[in-house]
Amino acid sequence: MPSVQRRIHALIFDVFGTVVDWRGSIIRECRALGRSKKIAADWDAFADAWRAGYRPAMARVRSGELPWMNIDQLHRMILDGLLGKFGIDGLTEDEIDHLNRVWHRLDPWPDARKGLALLKRRHVIATLSNGNVSLLVNMAKHGRLPWDTVLSAELFHHYKPDPEAYLGAAAMLGFEPSEVMMVAAHKDDLRAAQACGLATAFVRRPREKGPKVKLDLKPEADFDYNAKDFVDLARRMAA
Amino acid sequence: MPSVQRRIHALIFDVFGTVVDWRGSIIRECRALGRSKKIAADWDAFADAWRAGYRPAMARVRSGELPWMNIDQLHRMILDGLLGKFGIDGLTEDEIDHLNRVWHRLDPWPDARKGLALLKRRHVIATLSNGNVSLLVNMAKHGRLPWDTVLSAELFHHYKPDPEAYLGAAAMLGFEPSEVMMVAAHKDDLRAAQACGLATAFVRRPREKGPKVKLDLKPEADFDYNAKDFVDLARRMAA
Repeated sequence: MPSVQRRIHALIFDVFGTVVDWRGSIIRECRALGRSKKIAADWDAFADAWRAGYRPAMARVRSGELPWMNIDQLHRMILDGLLGKFGIDGLTEDEIDHLNRVWHRLDPWPDARKGLALLKRRHVIATLSNGNVSLLVNMAKHGRLPWDTVLSAELFHHYKPDPEAYLGAAAMLGFEPSEVMMVAAHKDDLRAAQACGLATAFVRRPREKGPKVKLDLKPEADFDYNAKDFVDLARRMAA
Repeated sequence: MPSVQRRIHALIFDVFGTVVDWRGSIIRECRALGRSKKIAADWDAFADAWRAGYRPAMARVRSGELPWMNIDQLHRMILDGLLGKFGIDGLTEDEIDHLNRVWHRLDPWPDARKGLALLKRRHVIATLSNGNVSLLVNMAKHGRLPWDTVLSAELFHHYKPDPEAYLGAAAMLGFEPSEVMMVAAHKDDLRAAQACGLATAFVRRPREKGPKVKLDLKPEADFDYNAKDFVDLARRMAA
């Protein structure tokens, strides 16, 4: 039950971890790369290290220390620092560039496509990711994700959790913040959206960080919805 | 046959007149409004006058005479000037606002949905319209247009034919201008895209301005494609 009865017109989705399984996808593709290039690296640790570099890199952009750089550029900056550390040698520039774009080829969680299709029947559904537009468009083609449109922090030159990203997305869709719901597996993202007046839906993704990491999956009474996955969210919203 | 053999990754589409039948849609909806509100206006002339105000209004934004205003705002400015002239009286503010959003509810040409679905199989397909994002998203829901994403002059604060719109769209999709093709029923839009290095596809829409207005439908040898409609374009691109 929503804590406040609101009319939700649009749902905007966090993507990395919420819609797609970044960790599993990167490990799978890197293992295949390792086999074909005879590189023996700890790909699980590599995926985790790459992701761990993401938030600090964005923080440097948010603080103004770095000029605006999109996520492809930030991913590449982090990757360049990891190749040597993980003993990933002998890749050409084209191969490194292709590896960097593994983030364009992440696989959706098993419920994502079906859940989005259900939610799309009654609502505008869009991304609101820190990933750049081209990354999100390529990922949607790869995973056949049926977005009505792709919105990105890139459009506002403000990364989440800056309020400009949430408020910019609502305005661009032509709705009041209270008519838009942020959907995410991350409570900090939802808290920031909530502070901007958006509705919130928490979706549990217990395996986002792999089988060993225990995540905070507790439902929160002040989120409008707490759902198991996107199909469950669609069912709850239709109830 | 393309005049230059290029690899086209993405197609970006003009929308008003190219994808949707603005004139027919507006006349149909306004006639229904006239019947229900007992307003006898010349709706054909009204639709034409509304559209005729569009280019001069954008020119005032492009020249800097007006600050950035989106198309919903420009349509409303023009509409406010036409209501009295056409004897359209007695509408409430909500009804005028609803009428202004008729541009969000334009119907696609009969081939559009099928043609876009075919083109989407091999290419990224996106709008590049002067219409604002929310207008284009609502229109896509209304007409079930399967865009990969919605791009708009609104994202660049530059209306077509400013080069920033074409170059901005290509960059946002992550492609070189030569890897992107502009699709339009209007030669001036295609010429501006071509000057930015984009490929061009001309699609004939003989009824855009109604049955009485003869349009320039002549194929041009320096456009990469000249097509009858979107299905024909898909067929030619697959050949």
